Amino acid sequence: MTTVNITAAVIADLENIVGQSFVFADEATRIAYGRDETEDFSFPPAVLVKPSNPKEISDILQLANRHRIPVTPIGARTGLSGGALSIHQGIGLSMERFNTIIEIDEKNLQVTVEPGVITQTLQEAVLDKNLFYPPDPSSRGSCFIGGNVAENAGGARAVKYGVTKDYVLNLEMVLPTGEIIWTGANTLKNATGYNLTQLMVGSEGTLGIITKIVMKLLPKNTHTILMLVPFHNASAACEAVSEIFRAGVVPSALEFMERDALEWALRYVDDSPMPIGDHIQAHLLIEVDGNYPEVLFAEAEKISAVVEKFDIDEILFADTEDQKNALWKLRRAAAEAVKSNSVYKEEDTVVPRYELPKLLQGIKAIGLKYGFKSVCYGHAGDGNLHVNIIKGDLTDAEWTTEIPKGIREIFELTVSLKGTLSGEHGIGLVQKNYMDIAFNTTQLHLMKGIKDLFDPNGILNPGKVLPDNIGQQS
Amino acid sequence: MTTVNITAAVIADLENIVGQSFVFADEATRIAYGRDETEDFSFPPAVLVKPSNPKEISDILQLANRHRIPVTPIGARTGLSGGALSIHQGIGLSMERFNTIIEIDEKNLQVTVEPGVITQTLQEAVLDKNLFYPPDPSSRGSCFIGGNVAENAGGARAVKYGVTKDYVLNLEMVLPTGEIIWTGANTLKNATGYNLTQLMVGSEGTLGIITKIVMKLLPKNTHTILMLVPFHNASAACEAVSEIFRAGVVPSALEFMERDALEWALRYVDDSPMPIGDHIQAHLLIEVDGNYPEVLFAEAEKISAVVEKFDIDEILFADTEDQKNALWKLRRAAAEAVKSNSVYKEEDTVVPRYELPKLLQGIKAIGLKYGFKSVCYGHAGDGNLHVNIIKGDLTDAEWTTEIPKGIREIFELTVSLKGTLSGEHGIGLVQKNYMDIAFNTTQLHLMKGIKDLFDPNGILNPGKVLPDNIGQQS
Repeated sequence: MTTVNITAAVIADLENIVGQSFVFADEATRIAYGRDETEDFSFPPAVLVKPSNPKEISDILQLANRHRIPVTPIGARTGLSGGALSIHQGIGLSMERFNTIIEIDEKNLQVTVEPGVITQTLQEAVLDKNLFYPPDPSSRGSCFIGGNVAENAGGARAVKYGVTKDYVLNLEMVLPTGEIIWTGANTLKNATGYNLTQLMVGSEGTLGIITKIVMKLLPKNTHTILMLVPFHNASAACEAVSEIFRAGVVPSALEFMERDALEWALRYVDDSPMPIGDHIQAHLLIEVDGNYPEVLFAEAEKISAVVEKFDIDEILFADTEDQKNALWKLRRAAAEAVKSNSVYKEEDTVVPRYELPKLLQGIKAIGLKYGFKSVCYGHAGDGNLHVNIIKGDLTDAEWTTEIPKGIREIFELTVSLKGTLSGEHGIGLVQKNYMDIAFNTTQLHLMKGIKDLFDPNGILNPGKVLPDNIGQQS
Repeated sequence: MTTVNITAAVIADLENIVGQSFVFADEATRIAYGRDETEDFSFPPAVLVKPSNPKEISDILQLANRHRIPVTPIGARTGLSGGALSIHQGIGLSMERFNTIIEIDEKNLQVTVEPGVITQTLQEAVLDKNLFYPPDPSSRGSCFIGGNVAENAGGARAVKYGVTKDYVLNLEMVLPTGEIIWTGANTLKNATGYNLTQLMVGSEGTLGIITKIVMKLLPKNTHTILMLVPFHNASAACEAVSEIFRAGVVPSALEFMERDALEWALRYVDDSPMPIGDHIQAHLLIEVDGNYPEVLFAEAEKISAVVEKFDIDEILFADTEDQKNALWKLRRAAAEAVKSNSVYKEEDTVVPRYELPKLLQGIKAIGLKYGFKSVCYGHAGDGNLHVNIIKGDLTDAEWTTEIPKGIREIFELTVSLKGTLSGEHGIGLVQKNYMDIAFNTTQLHLMKGIKDLFDPNGILNPGKVLPDNIGQQS
């Protein structure tokens, strides 16, 4: 899709639809909504609109179809794959006014929420009713729940509780052609037609714009135990991960942090609770949760018995809520800490968890070959390793021509280990031209066919997810 | 799609593909493979083939595309919505030779299995390795895991552990046009392109033929407590269901059986363990599971405290494995017991669980209006109620013209309660012309578009899932 000029007539139409005060063509607004948390990119929309209901979105999309104007849905701009960047300018469509928790249904353990609600706000609102929404992305304090659905976000608790897709029961959405539909029903089970709900989850705003989300909830847990295990060897930390599950324990979090990740996070967060021993290469942050403290002690003991077979320092048990919060704050700060340190590219590799040591070693070897430093951390219990490639002293030429070859090798390794490109960040803009590593032309043509079915004029979030050149069908 | 004659040349081509001994055109075989467990239907294929690998299936589908011959995938023929019936004759494609458990991956808690493996065989094989495959359809002793994936089967444990879709990580499938693809990756998390895996699960053999399934497993649980609670009032039993969750307990099974369902099952199963009190109208069968007996006792006490607020008789606790097995055998026998009693139609209604009392009362009122008796039981924890409509003394005319009007009213009620047509049996043949109750033409055209994308010639399992007439797009 080529860039289209937005005429004064289109602006006037947009103002008619959403009201004059919710259409923005000024540079400051356009620039602010042209960024997310992906590298240092800037792709401002030609005009930003802030609709407040599905009908307005429907009208905007119909207008966009008539004039073939690209429309990019924009959430909280915390994305890490560039999904919300208006790379073809056009209309940026901010979902920030969809910010209502419509109903917390305590009788059915469900919540109906608009997509612009901040994830942590949702978590806390249901917790007030003794209910639990488990998915917990590190950006929960600022990201929108709609973005979580669009990217199929995960986070630390996915290892026990699953990812966003496992909580979405039903979606109200506006199709790219303007029709407003529900994708399913508000039921825990559903074997009624094709699963449009799960097709939408993770489709990164390319198949429709989500306007309401019905999610299931769980009864809340009352207790957690959190432990930090320092390893002398990073690969050994990865090895310990699958051993814990084989001991019959499913932790509620099982996070891996390379030494650098923790060290940079400690420097980034002021109230650092502890020093790191000189010979420590990595940490596992492990949580168990439930309602029965004696069970959690038993599980923590099983975990201790597993990790003590490896070369570790003393395990730190967080005894108080403050200690627990401090550790989680560090873990959540890792991404920002790395970002504050240098321009970087973040890859979101995921493999079957037993393959983690091979993945980590392979990444380091590829780094040596291409001359880049990487800082790795992530949700090891899911086999999900975030690889932060640091620009540091690399030249712009190396950064733009050589490093992508190294990234390609990382993804080839990931796929050879039966993993894939992204566990929870999505493909968006920055990974789309690696999609040929995970999928052949038959698979990509199926995905393109789905895109064309939903969005015949290709107006919605063009240039995302699917590679620029799919090639001839085999 | 119209019925096509299978010529001698086509038979010869099929023999070339799978070998002469795996092509069957004799009447006995055709009739045997023309039935499943749906009512008393008989739709024999013109010819039955038994391929043994994806390449053979690919060749068969390419042949079928050249001649526009309908192909119906056939599993264990335990389906309850007629999905495996060769309603347009053509080629019946039995998956029974895909009967290998390829790998139980203890390191990653995954299993790779062919679709023709019996579900219970899979459950027991992984249990031997101390692993747990939770989905547990009542037909587990005879159904195929591939059929479970095609229908997104559930069963009693879905209330705590989810349904088949929640365990499928990756699928090898043959597209209707013959290409062999994998749908995803062997990872717990995946945010890489559109979710073809979840689009396939529950698509009832209309979008492709599954040839390998990669599923996640859990560590096994060591203990269960099973309790049977007799209620004086069936609606009260339904009300108790959502109260249990609101007390903070998630049982591993929460089954509802109307008096008739249990009584008929007791008569059907020889070694009946107990009589039913005169004034008992319904039972809840409730299981909790885990590794810590003291926790299960505490949870069972919480459940007891909830149900004792209702008008119940004494709770029966199954103390031994034999007693537990006897109770589960009764519950699983309910469907067969009803079937042995009369011709019947089974609907698989599902609603948010708090709406169950309204659903049950509504069904009984609709039964009075149309003069039919119904026997209801099901997975009440999921809001999933199986409604068995008994032919009994109804005339054939009443059965074929009046009863469908009553069924339409049942589904209208279900959808008005924010539920849908099928929780776990699928739409197949018998519910397809009720799909307009759950979906409007926009939604149905999207589903039809997906079908046409995957299967441009409409050769694969034609006449299933989607209604005969979708109508003009609104």
